[in-house]
Amino acid sequence: MGHPPFEPRDPEYDARVRRSFARQGAMAYLGVQIGALEPGHCELRLPFRAEISQQHGYFHGGVVGTLADTAGGYAAYTLMAAEASILTVEYKLNLLAPADGELLVAMARVVKPGRTLSISSAEVFVEKGGQRTLCALMQQTLMAIHGRHDPA
Amino acid sequence: MGHPPFEPRDPEYDARVRRSFARQGAMAYLGVQIGALEPGHCELRLPFRAEISQQHGYFHGGVVGTLADTAGGYAAYTLMAAEASILTVEYKLNLLAPADGELLVAMARVVKPGRTLSISSAEVFVEKGGQRTLCALMQQTLMAIHGRHDPA
Amino acid sequence: MGHPPFEPRDPEYDARVRRSFARQGAMAYLGVQIGALEPGHCELRLPFRAEISQQHGYFHGGVVGTLADTAGGYAAYTLMAAEASILTVEYKLNLLAPADGELLVAMARVVKPGRTLSISSAEVFVEKGGQRTLCALMQQTLMAIHGRHDPA
Amino acid sequence: MGHPPFEPRDPEYDARVRRSFARQGAMAYLGVQIGALEPGHCELRLPFRAEISQQHGYFHGGVVGTLADTAGGYAAYTLMAAEASILTVEYKLNLLAPADGELLVAMARVVKPGRTLSISSAEVFVEKGGQRTLCALMQQTLMAIHGRHDPA
Repeated sequence: MGHPPFEPRDPEYDARVRRSFARQGAMAYLGVQIGALEPGHCELRLPFRAEISQQHGYFHGGVVGTLADTAGGYAAYTLMAAEASILTVEYKLNLLAPADGELLVAMARVVKPGRTLSISSAEVFVEKGGQRTLCALMQQTLMAIHGRHDPA
Repeated sequence: MGHPPFEPRDPEYDARVRRSFARQGAMAYLGVQIGALEPGHCELRLPFRAEISQQHGYFHGGVVGTLADTAGGYAAYTLMAAEASILTVEYKLNLLAPADGELLVAMARVVKPGRTLSISSAEVFVEKGGQRTLCALMQQTLMAIHGRHDPA
Repeated sequence: MGHPPFEPRDPEYDARVRRSFARQGAMAYLGVQIGALEPGHCELRLPFRAEISQQHGYFHGGVVGTLADTAGGYAAYTLMAAEASILTVEYKLNLLAPADGELLVAMARVVKPGRTLSISSAEVFVEKGGQRTLCALMQQTLMAIHGRHDPA
Repeated sequence: MGHPPFEPRDPEYDARVRRSFARQGAMAYLGVQIGALEPGHCELRLPFRAEISQQHGYFHGGVVGTLADTAGGYAAYTLMAAEASILTVEYKLNLLAPADGELLVAMARVVKPGRTLSISSAEVFVEKGGQRTLCALMQQTLMAIHGRHDPA
């Protein structure tokens, strides 16, 4: 489908997204790191730990969803105005393969940016022994709340 | 919509579900507890901590999804055969209100049980100062894998 | 889950919804009728015809989705302001059983009304020989566009 | 994301899909045509008619969903065994822009084929005055029923 060359409204989008990410207690607690950040694109990475596993020892499906949701949200947030706040309206996640590996990587991109609603999609890959497998696919709707920026 | 009186195939379903839940590292790490467990029904509870918050200090949307996904999965697992394992095929979550409160409660029920596929739905409530607000709604597809029971 | 007693902002909601429904060419072409209409609730009915079947002679899954989408949209539209227009943002449909029967009935209700976004859910039943079977479940997001009412 | 070079299990997949498509009364009634068919890929086309419109005169959202659902299902069906039948388990559709134009084109591809479950995604474009706009995005789960092939 190709990545349209998105033009961010806020030239300071990178610092703004990283500040918001740093305020998410859940990201630090799970161990999520920002891999890449560009206008309309966000990559998040999460190394495996037993603390985030399900009953078979793989990454928990909810954790896979959390990574996808967060990556999709920040992909959309890169394109929002400086004074806007962002909320997830909904997301839908298909789990395609067991998330069995050492590293989880969510790659999200904006499919359709909008003043109020934005649509993102994300692919989540699991890496094991140098091999990367697509393990989840997400489609998501996000909403910009104008005039209520995130707390500094 | 009413809860049909489900008949579990495995009379030991309660112990089987609790064993599987106990093996999920993510449940202990997040602090999730089983509130109630009946055939075709599962309630999970999660007290708030800053470690599971998003940027505004509410429960993280991914954590809300994790709770809903897990509750829906175990609701379906109560009705599965003793030798079956369970996988989430997909789930879709609408976030209806900020998950702002002290306690998150996911109440899941099976909408349609099946030998291979089961469909669950879950409502997630947030409690704040004694008041309960519906904050998320989930619809989910689960799959039974026969002959590959969960590790004891 | 209970139906909250919704208070419509527009006392003329019934006539407004029926006018909008009558302008949908697809509803007449498929043969859809309004069964019931109340604040936050809409029931649509569709008798079977070979023209709306899939390859096994059941109601086509897309038609089931169309009925659910439309019922959910009009359930939300009953609660919107007189000057608002409505758009479906997204919907997710689980097909639970073959839609094999003489009549399809979608019963939709608003889960969460909102000034901009509303969330509806719908159950679709198929009737065959006097027996009613739940055949689909839908979760949906709708958006009110203010100041751009539907054409009269 | 790239289209993996899928190898069909059934060398006669093209004729098998077209036979199944021809049996869907709804496809002829709506006016849907097969645009392209390859292993793991299906393109469907639908010219505009007032009979398939919604209240603003655009393609009805349910029709957009029907086209996406059917394209995704046949994309998966190209890869199934000759003796298998196919059912849609669920689909989720985001409507990204008004489907305002003369022609609707759904392009679906299989994201993950499987013996029992397959996952497809579809993009739906609307063409108006020679311009093509992405108007919907779908994510879908399909199930193969073995040993119960479609009626000839």
